[in-house]
Amino acid sequence: MSSIAEELAKKQKEISVSEFFERNRQILGFDSQVKALIMGVKEAVDNSLDACEEASILPEIQVRIERVEKDEYKVTVEDNGPGIVKRMIPNVFGRLLYGSRFHAVRQSRGQQGIGISATVMFGQITTGRATTVRSKTAHEETAWELDLIINTKKNLPEVLREEPKIWDGKDHGVRVEFFMNGRYLSGKQSVMEYLKQTAIVNPHAKFTFVDPEGRSITFERASDDLPPPTKEIKPHPEGLELGTLMNMANETKSKSLSKFLQTDFSRISDRLAKEICEKAGLDPERTNLRLLDKKDNPGGLRLEDYKRLIEALSSVKIMAPQTDCLSPIGGNLIRKGLKNVLTEIRPEFYAHPVTREARVYAGNPFLVEVGIVYGGDLPKEQPVQILRFANRVPLLYQQGACAITKSIERTDWRRYGLEQRGGEGIPYGPAIIMVHVASTKVPFTSEAKEAIANIPEIQAEIELALKICGRSLKTHLNKKDTKVKTKAKFDIVQVILPLIAEKSAKIVGKPVPSLSGTITKIMNVVWIDDSVAYEKKAHKVRVTIYNYTPKGQKMNLHMVLPQEKLDYTGLQMFPAQVKDDGKVTWELRSIPTTQKVEIQFQLKGLDQDAYDENEVYVSGIDPSLVIGADPLPGDWDVKALQISESASAEPVEDDEDEVDYDEQKEALSDD
Amino acid sequence: MSSIAEELAKKQKEISVSEFFERNRQILGFDSQVKALIMGVKEAVDNSLDACEEASILPEIQVRIERVEKDEYKVTVEDNGPGIVKRMIPNVFGRLLYGSRFHAVRQSRGQQGIGISATVMFGQITTGRATTVRSKTAHEETAWELDLIINTKKNLPEVLREEPKIWDGKDHGVRVEFFMNGRYLSGKQSVMEYLKQTAIVNPHAKFTFVDPEGRSITFERASDDLPPPTKEIKPHPEGLELGTLMNMANETKSKSLSKFLQTDFSRISDRLAKEICEKAGLDPERTNLRLLDKKDNPGGLRLEDYKRLIEALSSVKIMAPQTDCLSPIGGNLIRKGLKNVLTEIRPEFYAHPVTREARVYAGNPFLVEVGIVYGGDLPKEQPVQILRFANRVPLLYQQGACAITKSIERTDWRRYGLEQRGGEGIPYGPAIIMVHVASTKVPFTSEAKEAIANIPEIQAEIELALKICGRSLKTHLNKKDTKVKTKAKFDIVQVILPLIAEKSAKIVGKPVPSLSGTITKIMNVVWIDDSVAYEKKAHKVRVTIYNYTPKGQKMNLHMVLPQEKLDYTGLQMFPAQVKDDGKVTWELRSIPTTQKVEIQFQLKGLDQDAYDENEVYVSGIDPSLVIGADPLPGDWDVKALQISESASAEPVEDDEDEVDYDEQKEALSDD
Repeated sequence: MSSIAEELAKKQKEISVSEFFERNRQILGFDSQVKALIMGVKEAVDNSLDACEEASILPEIQVRIERVEKDEYKVTVEDNGPGIVKRMIPNVFGRLLYGSRFHAVRQSRGQQGIGISATVMFGQITTGRATTVRSKTAHEETAWELDLIINTKKNLPEVLREEPKIWDGKDHGVRVEFFMNGRYLSGKQSVMEYLKQTAIVNPHAKFTFVDPEGRSITFERASDDLPPPTKEIKPHPEGLELGTLMNMANETKSKSLSKFLQTDFSRISDRLAKEICEKAGLDPERTNLRLLDKKDNPGGLRLEDYKRLIEALSSVKIMAPQTDCLSPIGGNLIRKGLKNVLTEIRPEFYAHPVTREARVYAGNPFLVEVGIVYGGDLPKEQPVQILRFANRVPLLYQQGACAITKSIERTDWRRYGLEQRGGEGIPYGPAIIMVHVASTKVPFTSEAKEAIANIPEIQAEIELALKICGRSLKTHLNKKDTKVKTKAKFDIVQVILPLIAEKSAKIVGKPVPSLSGTITKIMNVVWIDDSVAYEKKAHKVRVTIYNYTPKGQKMNLHMVLPQEKLDYTGLQMFPAQVKDDGKVTWELRSIPTTQKVEIQFQLKGLDQDAYDENEVYVSGIDPSLVIGADPLPGDWDVKALQISESASAEPVEDDEDEVDYDEQKEALSDD
Repeated sequence: MSSIAEELAKKQKEISVSEFFERNRQILGFDSQVKALIMGVKEAVDNSLDACEEASILPEIQVRIERVEKDEYKVTVEDNGPGIVKRMIPNVFGRLLYGSRFHAVRQSRGQQGIGISATVMFGQITTGRATTVRSKTAHEETAWELDLIINTKKNLPEVLREEPKIWDGKDHGVRVEFFMNGRYLSGKQSVMEYLKQTAIVNPHAKFTFVDPEGRSITFERASDDLPPPTKEIKPHPEGLELGTLMNMANETKSKSLSKFLQTDFSRISDRLAKEICEKAGLDPERTNLRLLDKKDNPGGLRLEDYKRLIEALSSVKIMAPQTDCLSPIGGNLIRKGLKNVLTEIRPEFYAHPVTREARVYAGNPFLVEVGIVYGGDLPKEQPVQILRFANRVPLLYQQGACAITKSIERTDWRRYGLEQRGGEGIPYGPAIIMVHVASTKVPFTSEAKEAIANIPEIQAEIELALKICGRSLKTHLNKKDTKVKTKAKFDIVQVILPLIAEKSAKIVGKPVPSLSGTITKIMNVVWIDDSVAYEKKAHKVRVTIYNYTPKGQKMNLHMVLPQEKLDYTGLQMFPAQVKDDGKVTWELRSIPTTQKVEIQFQLKGLDQDAYDENEVYVSGIDPSLVIGADPLPGDWDVKALQISESASAEPVEDDEDEVDYDEQKEALSDD
């Protein structure tokens, strides 16, 4: 028996990380020949984009794929980034788990120090050939060119050749050339599709792609503004784990507990640090923060002390993390990006994109953005198309394993106008749902970075954003639907009733009676009609509220306007409450029967594309009376309503020059 | 600009593998509190099962989960395995990428040297507490007990305590105790479910589980036979990659190219090695196999030489890999395991489980097993339940990402009697589909080992196995259906026709005519009725073929019998061809009109459970005439048919004592 234990013991040995991934390349995403090529391009392009943005350079990236023989391809990716200093090149490209972004708390594409070295390794395994890296920094006289491979047993680079090179016309940048067994395809999962989707979420970058047939395609940049550079922050204390706290405390350079809390974490002020120490029953000035039962540290903290510290940290109110560590795309550019790529589909509707505020999971800030596109030539009988992005990188594989997909599946899309069996699963219909998750650390399910793990906090945020964006879709579909129906009803009532009245009057020899009372009784609706038109560099918005009920009505009218800073000309003509997040509430305190009220204003400073449909809600009125606007969703800030409801219902007299508040006896005869 | 490149360079550093996983624990499956507990138990149990089987010990494993406080649990897993020698304990439990099974080419649960150390690390991160390991080998006087943690910056174990312990009544075994933040739940994804499914595919193991409420549940072993121990083999050359070949050639201890091919690979004989060398244009006796352009190796091989070698390897015919490196469960035990767990559902039907032959992907042997359960109390209106296993380990998470699920989704289940929109996606119906993939290296999508990557070879095999098993389901459903319909028709014909005949005869004063000709004209079918009954420790099988057509018929009748070695008593009464894989073909060369033929035999040596429905096919006859058996699927070995078809159609006279081959004028009056 012991011989078995001994025998097993003899077999125990260390596995190098590169050896591990050499044997488990599917974990890195190199599990098929088609995918391998895409992965290789993606890793190189991700690195180029990160480097350019870190150096505040507008990225210009060239990708070329050439067929060498049968299954062997040569891939070249060249950027205009800052370059890599020569001594670092071997480690960056020839060593797994080596990189500059792993320890930094800020959004970047690369985080793991695995991707490009894995590409070098996979190229070498499948073709036996080295990778060539050429790099020049602005400071160096010449470029350097290196051929290198990975020694997978040791996870160390081996440089086979290095020499200085003149790089014509290039002041700084990197070019990577590798060979790889692969298969080049076009289609839904392809290099082309990867670049196309990358262009959607990186409108500041220019990409040129030469395919194996020699055809060149350029994705021009849609914007010359670099996204604001992301800033590195300290870990946020929310969701901090005991072991992580202990590790940090054991390694801190801070001189006291209070200083440690302030310096090593985000959002902890001097005052808050003291409060936390007090709650934990620990002296803020305490200096020895290491663990007690480690050798030679008798004065250290006990496990219970750390536990109390964690509890104290989670019991105090800590500000949400700074958002400048994140780089959201923004509603405006999401819409622009989508429109740019989807023109040939001519969609009927782009829902208002949603950019949520930053939240935290396990100490990592993240935020979610959602866009929905509907109609046009999108297929009606198929599952909706899902576009997934993480830190501005498209995710082409493992859709089924991704928190984004899970969230879409868990949302009841029947409420938002899409078909869905049992209110679960991927909905059917002519729509594209786009979701972007940005985080200082995206929790991918594997090193291949193809799917986001089901972290409850992230899933909840995605679902919320989907619902908000879904509502915009539903509003559109409802409006379309009710407009058609109400129009038909109105037409009938307005044509037939007068004819009857006229005939009857003729027969009995009496004058034709006023029909407005009768018509309102038949209709019994408040009809809200809205429009938006782009004229003279401004969006002219008009909302008309017709009271086709037999009595006077009052209500609150709500709209969601673009969150960007705008010139709301004319917005104040009614008592309106305008909030920072673009939510506007009007109090319409009295609309007499058969009359109408009109709100008009304009939005200045938006691209024409950026606003093309109004989102109108009502509250304070029986919603079944209203046609043309949905009841206000429950998650709006209730304060807005309380103000309205507590306000008096007196008619308001201020500044009515633009408003049809005058008596119109025959409102129905209006257009 | 250079300052940016320099700044970036300064940030470049190595990341230790434990640090990487500390920050990316979702990759290891520790992404939720519920899952973390399951993962911890799973890693410890997997190791225990592997160790027991390597030492040929029938596993007896105790799992206990206790609640310490709020979210903190203590998990204890104890086995009766061979124990771990003391000096190895720290590395096995306290160091990631360290293990005994990574380099071995044979099926085992653990392969990566990550799981249990990850558990130790996660426990320590969430609770700040060390893991306690107690181990005793049969050779040692006492057990040893160690408290250890992982230094995640260095990926090295730190032992906090070690001391000898008397372990009452225990000759050998290991006990692991760790603390972990988690949440204990029951349900579909739970520790209980993991153990239950583990018991299905490991019927030789006994599990005792004490849950946090103190309730004890035991899964008794269903079989006292250990699965045959898996044998380590050399890599199989199929799908070998150039880089891997080069690495192997650079490190071989073999003295010549020919010896290298024979010794370092599976299934290459001396003769084959020479053939390969010849095809590659290389001298078999060549001794220097290392790469030419490495320093100080001028006599080495060139890249082109390796390429030609790879091509030669892929062009010669190499035997399939040995299967003793794999440990399939086998049809018998699959059925037993499923029945054991599913009794309360009382399914109507267990399809014949399928165990496919071993195949190879990228040099790794693998095989696929499938079982299907149908009906009973399984829900009719829901997607089928999928049970996924890899190397006898249940996969509870990431169903959507798994090649097993993909294969099920790509199969058109409408052909096998299940509902499925558009013939794609997970089918609906009262069924459970169980799939087991066994391999010397299961290509998991991540270190959490939750889903199998979409390797084309594996997916193809799963789909094939699903289809074969699906056919068994369809046969059952068809039979059920046609039996009911044919019975109804027969009843009508047999009751009404004689009545008419009798009345007519009376009226015209003539004798009642023989009706068989008329009845056969009306029916015009060959009806195949079969049954199986378990009596006196044998399965009695009876197949009766009624010729209700107006003329004589001939046909081949086929059955699939259990592949285990059996006493086919009475099988040879007709000229039958019995094949190793259990496929039997009878040639029925002449069945006169209105007559019947009966085949009877028994199967000895099977458990009662192991065979409860016949699978009967026909060929050599117009299938639209036949009721009660499906036409032979296209993938049967055609030789069986060629023999039948080339054989003469003469009636056969041999050994007919059991057979109703005598003239029966009134076959229909038979029961």
